[in-house]
Amino acid sequence: MTILSDVSLLGEVAGLARSMPVTDAAAAEAARARQNNLTKPPGALGRLEELAIFMAGWQGTDRPDIAGAQALVFAGNHGVCAQGVNPFPQDVTAQMVANFEQGGAAINQLCRANGANLSVIALELDRPTGDISAGAAMSEAETLDALRRGAAAVDPGASVLILGEMGIGNSTIAAAMAKGAFGGDAAHWVGKGTGSDDAGVARKIDVVTRACVRHAEARGLEILARLGGREQAAICGAVLEARARRIPVILDGFICTAATAPLFAADRRFLDHCLVGHVSREPGHARLLSELGMRPILSLDMALGEGSGAAIALGVLRAALACHNGMATFAEAGVSGQ
Amino acid sequence: MTILSDVSLLGEVAGLARSMPVTDAAAAEAARARQNNLTKPPGALGRLEELAIFMAGWQGTDRPDIAGAQALVFAGNHGVCAQGVNPFPQDVTAQMVANFEQGGAAINQLCRANGANLSVIALELDRPTGDISAGAAMSEAETLDALRRGAAAVDPGASVLILGEMGIGNSTIAAAMAKGAFGGDAAHWVGKGTGSDDAGVARKIDVVTRACVRHAEARGLEILARLGGREQAAICGAVLEARARRIPVILDGFICTAATAPLFAADRRFLDHCLVGHVSREPGHARLLSELGMRPILSLDMALGEGSGAAIALGVLRAALACHNGMATFAEAGVSGQ
Repeated sequence: MTILSDVSLLGEVAGLARSMPVTDAAAAEAARARQNNLTKPPGALGRLEELAIFMAGWQGTDRPDIAGAQALVFAGNHGVCAQGVNPFPQDVTAQMVANFEQGGAAINQLCRANGANLSVIALELDRPTGDISAGAAMSEAETLDALRRGAAAVDPGASVLILGEMGIGNSTIAAAMAKGAFGGDAAHWVGKGTGSDDAGVARKIDVVTRACVRHAEARGLEILARLGGREQAAICGAVLEARARRIPVILDGFICTAATAPLFAADRRFLDHCLVGHVSREPGHARLLSELGMRPILSLDMALGEGSGAAIALGVLRAALACHNGMATFAEAGVSGQ
Repeated sequence: MTILSDVSLLGEVAGLARSMPVTDAAAAEAARARQNNLTKPPGALGRLEELAIFMAGWQGTDRPDIAGAQALVFAGNHGVCAQGVNPFPQDVTAQMVANFEQGGAAINQLCRANGANLSVIALELDRPTGDISAGAAMSEAETLDALRRGAAAVDPGASVLILGEMGIGNSTIAAAMAKGAFGGDAAHWVGKGTGSDDAGVARKIDVVTRACVRHAEARGLEILARLGGREQAAICGAVLEARARRIPVILDGFICTAATAPLFAADRRFLDHCLVGHVSREPGHARLLSELGMRPILSLDMALGEGSGAAIALGVLRAALACHNGMATFAEAGVSGQ
């Protein structure tokens, strides 16, 4: 049973916002009070204090912990590649999935280094979604199926969930979703992605512009079906399922964050339990985070995807909780407070 | 034997720059070549790639690692506290040292979380340095002694060295050192430090201004003796010893970075093996990093000291090396490269 088990129409997803758990304000407040008694000037741990309080609110305890971190990387292929938006062949998606499965990718090393349990879920790689410049990416049934795949992949016992993606062509999809949700010129959302040159960027801008004209009437979850892809839908499904189970989420870079834009467009409360691990070098990401009102944990000039920035941010989150749970209070340590 | 064993005059320290090891360009280049063959677009790991290449150059191998990370926190007391620059009593320095020794401080948790071996070295806490607004902080002999204490504390087998400090009043000392090394108005270097209000900041600005007028002729290492303190000198000694042993260093926030300003003023090559773990909320730090030409790894709104930001950055460094050493190449993984 997942949060999507009883949903049979895409239009019903937005309604889930009304019944989803919210942060536990009392637990968050108790965590804040603890932070102010730890042997440091109040606020001196900056973002680490905010992260500990955030985790307390979602886990519903003043002593949040990370007993088990789960990382999910969803992979998909995209019909929009027919428009020549990517310098790599589409086969690279499956090749990279094999690399994930063999432990050779960046995300494998980062999950091992920071103690996350990685699963990679390939979504019908031999059946790319529709070309968004020529029609809808997915039917309603295909969208619901991918949403359910994402929801079903969430470990109900996870303390925190890291989300990532892989899919040749999906930086074009991300730009289209961001424009679909927040408007603006396509050029504001399109970047070089994985290795495009200036001519490639110009092609991407043209494709995104045409796709968004074609699907201009899409709102909320329709943006996901018309302009998205399977890995984008799976990310949304995982975000929803994590929320139902009060599992905090760390989103990754531009493509992963853009995947959640339809949820935000449907009801901005859907992302209340989500952190953003890093801000990507891809220029649309900073703009997107500004639209979402989210502040990244890291800024390391990365642009890889796979959940890589989120997995590094997990280390910062662990540091935050180590301080929160392990430090002595002024009274315990016999240190003169203010 | 340390790099300072044969130094008997402070003026001889600057001369050490001529005979110190430099980065191994061939090892760095080999590491860069490896990065370009790993299963990711070249450059996609951003700062992580730079960090791996930096480590390769200093460790002199294309496969740098962190077999053992050392963290050193030096503590000292400051005569300038007589000028009312700090809202906390000077006893807090010793109380916090006891807290470090009992494992209750932030740096204890962060070292445990990121696998660093912590030592805390209290430097004559019952004998504060001279009030810099009334005379020199230390004699030449006292300065050399503290430099040697720092050098002697370095573990010759460490893979990387994290430096931090504790000392009530030492954000005033840091501002004075930064102004002594780089000029500018005192107000540009002074911040709230640990809990100062606006009146406290105004007092700090006045004290820093007067101290820098008094010691206006100080250059290079004289800035350390006249405007510094024991923990600042020990940090410089540890930086020098690490350099002699090709151990890369992660500096912490404003106070730790400012402690190294006299080395930079004496010869900027002294800091070539140093990273800066984070940029502090203390406003002088971003300005100081700009003067030093250094880019912080993290920006987490922290202002604690103790090496806390550097210890979190160690986690990012570990992530960088995990990717560098653990990822498959395109050929190994059978992934189509560019």
